[in-house]
Amino acid sequence: MRIPPLFSRSALLLAVAATAVIGWSAQPKAQKPQKVRLARIVVDSTQLASYKALLKEGVEAAMRTEPGVLSLYAVFEKKRPNHLTILEVYANEAAYQAHLKTPHFLKYKKGTQAMVQELELVDTDPLIPELKIK
Amino acid sequence: MRIPPLFSRSALLLAVAATAVIGWSAQPKAQKPQKVRLARIVVDSTQLASYKALLKEGVEAAMRTEPGVLSLYAVFEKKRPNHLTILEVYANEAAYQAHLKTPHFLKYKKGTQAMVQELELVDTDPLIPELKIK
Repeated sequence: MRIPPLFSRSALLLAVAATAVIGWSAQPKAQKPQKVRLARIVVDSTQLASYKALLKEGVEAAMRTEPGVLSLYAVFEKKRPNHLTILEVYANEAAYQAHLKTPHFLKYKKGTQAMVQELELVDTDPLIPELKIK
Repeated sequence: MRIPPLFSRSALLLAVAATAVIGWSAQPKAQKPQKVRLARIVVDSTQLASYKALLKEGVEAAMRTEPGVLSLYAVFEKKRPNHLTILEVYANEAAYQAHLKTPHFLKYKKGTQAMVQELELVDTDPLIPELKIK
């Protein structure tokens, strides 16, 4: 049986609309595929100034040249100044893997090797992936 | 002895210029008076969903309504989902004190009181105070 062209077109439009509505309502709000991590680091306190200089250089280069490095926000504890935490936010896993191969990361890694006494990498889920720093 | 007007004006200009140069070179690069802190929190895992909802509501209200709350970036550890860290960035101490009195913070604080098992507040110095999240 041949379906009349008008009905066929309406049915098609209805099917498209229904799919769109169902698809939209069934899916949770899109999550960014960000990789968000905490790096907890303890540095040899006698080399803290050198460590900070190398870290600053590496962070600034990454933020400036790598679009997929969304943040590398490092904080040093006031009471234990050689204990730091870095909030690392990458656009995705590929951006992180690319970061590991950059000259500035390799310079930081090699340059600070003898200064870093402890390094703990903690994978995390951000509460609000799209949150910024004003 | 009367100083000729022209000499007097030159001397004044020289003094102003010298003060400006000395003042500029003697001061370190201006640091923002930000208050930057890590909150390390352990939540009752049986109440994690409720805790997250209350935290999200509080963070969103603070970011939306308080210009001095620069960020409240919360991350939950993948391996220990009831362990979270919040990177708190306030414009200054006054902004933080004002935050503590807001209805949304008080709602979060009271609402989560029975859910929070551990709370450690760690004052920090950021490596690069002006760093953002892209």
